[in-house]
Amino acid sequence: MIQAMSKTTLFPDPQDSRLVRKVAGLDQDGRQVSLAVAEERPLTLFLNGQEIVTQMTIGDHPRELAVGYLLNQLMLRPTDRITAIDHDAAIDTVVVRTERRTDFEEKLKKKTQTSGCAQGTVFGDLMEDFDAHRLALDGFRLSAKTLRELIGDINARPSLYRTAGALHGCVLCDASQPLIYMEDVGRHNAVDKIAGLMALEGVAPQEKILYTTGRLTSEMVVKTVRMGIPILVSCSGFTAWGVELAAKANLTLIGRAKGRNFLVLAAPERLILEEPGS
Amino acid sequence: MIQAMSKTTLFPDPQDSRLVRKVAGLDQDGRQVSLAVAEERPLTLFLNGQEIVTQMTIGDHPRELAVGYLLNQLMLRPTDRITAIDHDAAIDTVVVRTERRTDFEEKLKKKTQTSGCAQGTVFGDLMEDFDAHRLALDGFRLSAKTLRELIGDINARPSLYRTAGALHGCVLCDASQPLIYMEDVGRHNAVDKIAGLMALEGVAPQEKILYTTGRLTSEMVVKTVRMGIPILVSCSGFTAWGVELAAKANLTLIGRAKGRNFLVLAAPERLILEEPGS
Repeated sequence: MIQAMSKTTLFPDPQDSRLVRKVAGLDQDGRQVSLAVAEERPLTLFLNGQEIVTQMTIGDHPRELAVGYLLNQLMLRPTDRITAIDHDAAIDTVVVRTERRTDFEEKLKKKTQTSGCAQGTVFGDLMEDFDAHRLALDGFRLSAKTLRELIGDINARPSLYRTAGALHGCVLCDASQPLIYMEDVGRHNAVDKIAGLMALEGVAPQEKILYTTGRLTSEMVVKTVRMGIPILVSCSGFTAWGVELAAKANLTLIGRAKGRNFLVLAAPERLILEEPGS
Repeated sequence: MIQAMSKTTLFPDPQDSRLVRKVAGLDQDGRQVSLAVAEERPLTLFLNGQEIVTQMTIGDHPRELAVGYLLNQLMLRPTDRITAIDHDAAIDTVVVRTERRTDFEEKLKKKTQTSGCAQGTVFGDLMEDFDAHRLALDGFRLSAKTLRELIGDINARPSLYRTAGALHGCVLCDASQPLIYMEDVGRHNAVDKIAGLMALEGVAPQEKILYTTGRLTSEMVVKTVRMGIPILVSCSGFTAWGVELAAKANLTLIGRAKGRNFLVLAAPERLILEEPGS
């Protein structure tokens, strides 16, 4: 059923001249060098009349970043109807407008009177909601061979990282191929942009794999679980709480995926592993 | 004069059992493995009666993290007198108390009425203040040889990263040795813990070098400049805005420092480079 839907795909565009700049420097021997370096710019996000946050981003896909951030922070509910997303590149702002004032604005209004800044509260809410998002073990299985092929495919694609470095990448895949590949300088912007695009294009999270170059911390695990994606993979390491939360939510967590090797830290049921020596 | 002061030194303690946990997993062939993994826990920070933020941290040095965060976010001014720092490990909170209500609390109170969450505002303030912190070219020089020796010394020391991975490190050095080496799971917690310790112990920033394993983004550059440290070094890459801000503030910015190689992106005047082939 999911396979029959038309597939949304999006990949990095290293040719986009707005995202990479030439910077002059010296090497260790004093020789002049010219380097391709990733841009980083502020983007201030508003939800209706409410200023939410200023994020540092490479600057592509501001609309997807805005919507994904609001969803992943529980400031926007999947049931909120978005009426407009206005990006003004000249003043680095994006305004997400909803039909009615969102729950979050009411909550924030109330909260600010007692605690001033919503950040702590928001995190509290994320964890409260977390238990309701336990992922079903619905028969979706991924073989170690397919996992390695997906990572090989991702690593072979052109990316801003390969051009300019200093970026993190996040890739939504199905069991046959990478679908949405986002990069950003901000730690979790890449995953938020994927969440935003999935919401705006109606991409189903079931039977999908999320690959990230970032570490598997609690925040990454919470976001993936909230997005409903059953398998999270990274070439990097993981924290103890990230592993604990993944186990609690039935998220298949795979770390240190490099070459032939990987480690499964939670919900190994979704993986088909080879027998040693087979 | 600075050399004559007694030196504050602090290094990672990989033997601290509160910071690393054993986690069970499977390798790619289905073999049971047991791994040392870094802890990650929430720490909610209060400034007097005001809840500020919940940070994810490995959990060592909560007092230094709290003070460094508040200073680096301009929520606490160097002139504010701290009367108490209360850490309650049972409920993961740290409360920083000042003699009088800080400017920030007044500002936040006013701001929340119009914009709700101070995050955007705080970032705005950081940039406003930035121009006032231009670093003097005061004759302090570092040779490429000393730089390589410092990095070699850092890499040879025991660390939580070497035990458990998935951590970033920040090290304050003088021209002869590493002095304060902090690690954390949160992106900028390591540098905030250094800022906190420097403030609490009265460590002067002049003639110091800050080494980080993290990327040289705008936030890292802004923090280093505000701390008054003239040289910032990373083994990782950098963003265009990070380079631009470093140049503006006269911060010597060195990226991709690995083995013999490094790149100088801003204020090379503080470096003594060898001639090619010397």
